[in-house]
Amino acid sequence: MGLADLKTRCRRDYPYLLEYRTRWNDNDMYDHMNNSVYNFLFDSAVNSYLVEKCGIHPPTSPQYGLAVHSHTDFLASIAYPAVAEVGVRVIKLGNSSVTYEVALFEKGCDEVKAVGGFVHVFVERATGRPPKNGINTQLREALGKIHLGPVVPPKEASKL
Amino acid sequence: MGLADLKTRCRRDYPYLLEYRTRWNDNDMYDHMNNSVYNFLFDSAVNSYLVEKCGIHPPTSPQYGLAVHSHTDFLASIAYPAVAEVGVRVIKLGNSSVTYEVALFEKGCDEVKAVGGFVHVFVERATGRPPKNGINTQLREALGKIHLGPVVPPKEASKL
Amino acid sequence: MGLADLKTRCRRDYPYLLEYRTRWNDNDMYDHMNNSVYNFLFDSAVNSYLVEKCGIHPPTSPQYGLAVHSHTDFLASIAYPAVAEVGVRVIKLGNSSVTYEVALFEKGCDEVKAVGGFVHVFVERATGRPPKNGINTQLREALGKIHLGPVVPPKEASKL
Amino acid sequence: MGLADLKTRCRRDYPYLLEYRTRWNDNDMYDHMNNSVYNFLFDSAVNSYLVEKCGIHPPTSPQYGLAVHSHTDFLASIAYPAVAEVGVRVIKLGNSSVTYEVALFEKGCDEVKAVGGFVHVFVERATGRPPKNGINTQLREALGKIHLGPVVPPKEASKL
Repeated sequence: MGLADLKTRCRRDYPYLLEYRTRWNDNDMYDHMNNSVYNFLFDSAVNSYLVEKCGIHPPTSPQYGLAVHSHTDFLASIAYPAVAEVGVRVIKLGNSSVTYEVALFEKGCDEVKAVGGFVHVFVERATGRPPKNGINTQLREALGKIHLGPVVPPKEASKL
Repeated sequence: MGLADLKTRCRRDYPYLLEYRTRWNDNDMYDHMNNSVYNFLFDSAVNSYLVEKCGIHPPTSPQYGLAVHSHTDFLASIAYPAVAEVGVRVIKLGNSSVTYEVALFEKGCDEVKAVGGFVHVFVERATGRPPKNGINTQLREALGKIHLGPVVPPKEASKL
Repeated sequence: MGLADLKTRCRRDYPYLLEYRTRWNDNDMYDHMNNSVYNFLFDSAVNSYLVEKCGIHPPTSPQYGLAVHSHTDFLASIAYPAVAEVGVRVIKLGNSSVTYEVALFEKGCDEVKAVGGFVHVFVERATGRPPKNGINTQLREALGKIHLGPVVPPKEASKL
Repeated sequence: MGLADLKTRCRRDYPYLLEYRTRWNDNDMYDHMNNSVYNFLFDSAVNSYLVEKCGIHPPTSPQYGLAVHSHTDFLASIAYPAVAEVGVRVIKLGNSSVTYEVALFEKGCDEVKAVGGFVHVFVERATGRPPKNGINTQLREALGKIHLGPVVPPKEASKL
């Protein structure tokens, strides 16, 4: 998907949205949030959904998600001490894998700052392998609530 | 000061208080926030006050604060995905150095989780040395607003 | 490029290789290095090359690199207290942008743990825009030394 | 102990010493390693000793250490991409608590950059309370090997 489309992403594309206040050390020497920190925030928002809505308890749950891929496109910068808002939606829900789209906004600012994605493969704690029958029912139902498929960019008014 | 006194600290002892949502990687393998992360949050809250209330602009300000000492007493644990609240007060305001007391609470929970302190020596960007005339007026006035001196623990009712 | 090809990456594919000892808090609650930490290490190795070999001085250089895209495929895990080895090569050298391929190995272990990439657009500090004449000569020459183009996976002996 | 004494600390005061390459995001906007990062490195070196020499396996060990106090005095700065060296010694070995002194050096540089300390209280995983009979034998013996008591600063030749 092209950068022009990614730039049209807005908060309402993401049914789960959390605020993260940036921290002093999030900024790097160029006085903006280091690009690697975006991944920490995306990871935090996705896992927060898993813990709070999907019954995942990281130290003991029989199934848990392993990240196998992540990517991010950085569209504009954000800097400490701003407050970030991170949105999550599921765009693909497979038998044992889940693909999320995630985006970062700045509180008080419309434009999206970054859009990324990552893929979790759920595995059984006992074996480290994907479960034969796929992810469990509680997880599937909760992920299904934010499974809206790929974001469809708005048609450009200028072309009408 | 004894641990018993530190445990009586409460939010109203700290005139500047900010919320920080914890992040997935704040937790360590013992399923609670790693002790080193407290320092990041204390540092973030203090610098936030300096940036937002004291006119400090980290990349260009002619004076900035160097940490020369920090300490923390850990009283109870907090774990992702909780929201932390970090309080700051100035307990000593010298010619070029400032001593802060900082504390960490968990949103929705009364007891204090950790109490710490750190010391900033303000130096001139040009020389790396404390300014001859001490910290500048804007900084002194703004720090003065949260300079309440050491926290005086409440007298124990049980001893009356 | 397929995962099977990524799994054939080896240290000699990367002309610049640095050791990074993992840290206690790199591990997450699943007792392996958190996936977001890979990006910190990739970023650290690339910037180390820029600082040590390309004449970049982050606080003052007239040109510096903005990350506009990053991605990582996670192939196997690594855990504290292991020592990581991070390799860097340039796979595309444009007028003002550079595409790196990066990979993470574990000291004492042959198989590659993760392969990623990111894209830097170099901008002028004064304007925040790509320089009219592209990246400067010192930078181009130094990046040219590790510009080996895309990695060509080995032909599989078993198919011969 | 006075700062003058802390400044005389040297590598041979610490029987366990590990190298940590600094990372891009360790530096803050003042172009030196953020003070909170020191604590991460101290924590990493101490836990490395516990894992590699004392039989601690963080996800399963029946006893593990909770940090109850930490402090650091910052004497000079270090900056990415330098390599740090972190030293550890035990200065007090109680029934269930251990007090470490830790120090940070820069590879290729004699002077100590920071000296700190922290206290671990070992607790039983099952109860979260210190074990009745104190820390186990393997742990006590291994910690005993680096238990050299407080560092005694050298007498100043100038006073003789």
